[in-house]
Amino acid sequence: MTDTDKRYMALALSLGRRGQGMCWPNPAVGCVIVKDGRIVGRGWTQPGGRPHAETEALAQAGERARGSTAYVSLEPCAHHGKTPPCAQALIDAGVARVVSAIEDSDPRVAGQGFEMLRAAGVEVTTGVMADQAARDHAGFFMKTEQGRPFVTLKLASSFDGRIATASGQSKWITGPDSRRAVHAMRARHDAVMVGAGTARADDPSLTVRDLGVGHQPVRIVVSRHLDIPLLGQLARTSSQIPVWLCHGPSPDSERARAWQGLGATLIPCAVRGHHIDATDLLQQLGRKGLTRVFCEGGSALAASLLADDLVDELVGFTAGLAIGAEGLPAIGALGLEDLSEAPSFELAEARPVGGDVLQVWRRSAR
Amino acid sequence: MTDTDKRYMALALSLGRRGQGMCWPNPAVGCVIVKDGRIVGRGWTQPGGRPHAETEALAQAGERARGSTAYVSLEPCAHHGKTPPCAQALIDAGVARVVSAIEDSDPRVAGQGFEMLRAAGVEVTTGVMADQAARDHAGFFMKTEQGRPFVTLKLASSFDGRIATASGQSKWITGPDSRRAVHAMRARHDAVMVGAGTARADDPSLTVRDLGVGHQPVRIVVSRHLDIPLLGQLARTSSQIPVWLCHGPSPDSERARAWQGLGATLIPCAVRGHHIDATDLLQQLGRKGLTRVFCEGGSALAASLLADDLVDELVGFTAGLAIGAEGLPAIGALGLEDLSEAPSFELAEARPVGGDVLQVWRRSAR
Repeated sequence: MTDTDKRYMALALSLGRRGQGMCWPNPAVGCVIVKDGRIVGRGWTQPGGRPHAETEALAQAGERARGSTAYVSLEPCAHHGKTPPCAQALIDAGVARVVSAIEDSDPRVAGQGFEMLRAAGVEVTTGVMADQAARDHAGFFMKTEQGRPFVTLKLASSFDGRIATASGQSKWITGPDSRRAVHAMRARHDAVMVGAGTARADDPSLTVRDLGVGHQPVRIVVSRHLDIPLLGQLARTSSQIPVWLCHGPSPDSERARAWQGLGATLIPCAVRGHHIDATDLLQQLGRKGLTRVFCEGGSALAASLLADDLVDELVGFTAGLAIGAEGLPAIGALGLEDLSEAPSFELAEARPVGGDVLQVWRRSAR
Repeated sequence: MTDTDKRYMALALSLGRRGQGMCWPNPAVGCVIVKDGRIVGRGWTQPGGRPHAETEALAQAGERARGSTAYVSLEPCAHHGKTPPCAQALIDAGVARVVSAIEDSDPRVAGQGFEMLRAAGVEVTTGVMADQAARDHAGFFMKTEQGRPFVTLKLASSFDGRIATASGQSKWITGPDSRRAVHAMRARHDAVMVGAGTARADDPSLTVRDLGVGHQPVRIVVSRHLDIPLLGQLARTSSQIPVWLCHGPSPDSERARAWQGLGATLIPCAVRGHHIDATDLLQQLGRKGLTRVFCEGGSALAASLLADDLVDELVGFTAGLAIGAEGLPAIGALGLEDLSEAPSFELAEARPVGGDVLQVWRRSAR
């Protein structure tokens, strides 16, 4: 592995990230083709997951791909899915060397892409910037390995961890720069998810706004009884931008029909105690193909996800306000017996965003 | 004002800060004497508030002070207190020019130091790095102008703003680097203050440890009924390091006698509702000479201070733990009617400290 390899791989990874939120159920891959020290092709997985990054980059490179090195942020696929295998396409184009960041954990690939390339005489180097690749593809790997999407839990709160006053006031605790950052985060996820309480209290549209982004993530509301206002923002826009409603068994049939009439997708989930079972919820979302879910609360849904150890990244936007103990907590009851049971995270980033503080925490190695 | 002036003033200010926590009731001032481009004297206010910074620096400079420039982080005093006026000492030493960061708000000085110097033919420049000086001397100015010390409220909490589990477990939510930073902050304050609940629950010693610091701030416990364990850490050490107990009217006379016997200072304060009146509490502490108080909770005392708009700096150490809504909140009930009434602060700093996040917020201009 050389510094040159790393430099091109960093570019391939950043191209790959452009597709985050848009490629599901496929991974968001980036590819750079280099011939005689010049970049002759660049590509990334296209919206909907096809064409793949390699196909895009090879098309750009054309004849110049012959004898080139291809940098791919994930092992090229080896199986015939809806597209022919990328490993074969790289071989057919005469690529001499393939540098890959990480092996694919999809059992249909899992090393077979590399094998196919080597068998055809292509030199293969792998593990270049594997840590970054593992983070970038965490959602895809998680869906493949555990059947559920990667979950980012975002909470915007006062200094003392409150998301609203006792009377329910919550607009706006954090400032415009934080809200803009949230929109950018939404755009990089397959879906944005909230609990029914938040949907009722805030009537959010959960769309990506003011960023010049065409793509909109799926909007998910977790509501055991489907009691979400039929005249709100989500209902009004559900024919243009997908709304998925995750509900418990036997929801009110009239509400169910009304939402289906509005174009919403209804997803039945198991119930545990009084709430939708968070583990089953995410399995259902994984089955629908989601790889990256951005949960924006409220406190009950946040607590369910944390209690089931389903939060992979915890993002906090903290404002310089004190709301006090009567305010609505960002995270509901967790029922801890001991401090050692508290869900714990490792710090990835802490910095000012406008007048607020951004904190990014990642799942601790446990 | 030149860059050279700023550079020497920055040094004078940093020397002055060495005295923070040790000089009360006097300001922590720094002084640098420069002759022909060389530093010939450096001084800062000594523990207990005397000698003053100028005296120290002039003593170092000796004859070399003649024709020099003296950089002082606060207007030199003009009145005969327990020491002769520093303005006179600078004149007597033959200093040609005095550069000062900011005017003293003490009515016994307030411009008269500068006048005395100018009348003696000394050139005076003022306002050099005045913003930093205003922050450094905020405690002294606040005591002079409002009769109360500057208050830093520090709260160490989980990601969701909890300082303990429902069962009271609180050791250790934040990590060793945060605790070390807290000790360094304690050392720069005149006193460390907690509520009685925290004193009972945590049995803290409230001392500065493991920093090689000789100086110890006063330990203050706010306890309406003086119900603080007589066998705890504070009681055990009260003959060596001052303990001040702020209590309501007619405390239990046996407890009062016991604490006096242990060497504690009893400070009667007014009561409002069920709590010590925070405004009166701070006036009493100002009367005792304190300029900088570091409050470490608990939630009731934090809420009292915030509700009376008495928090000048809010410091948060946030750990990557979720404790949930049953946990003890960092800030108690504030009784807000509207979000616009929430005490609000401006961000001064946000950065990682070990595995935790440090947030520093300052009183908003209101």
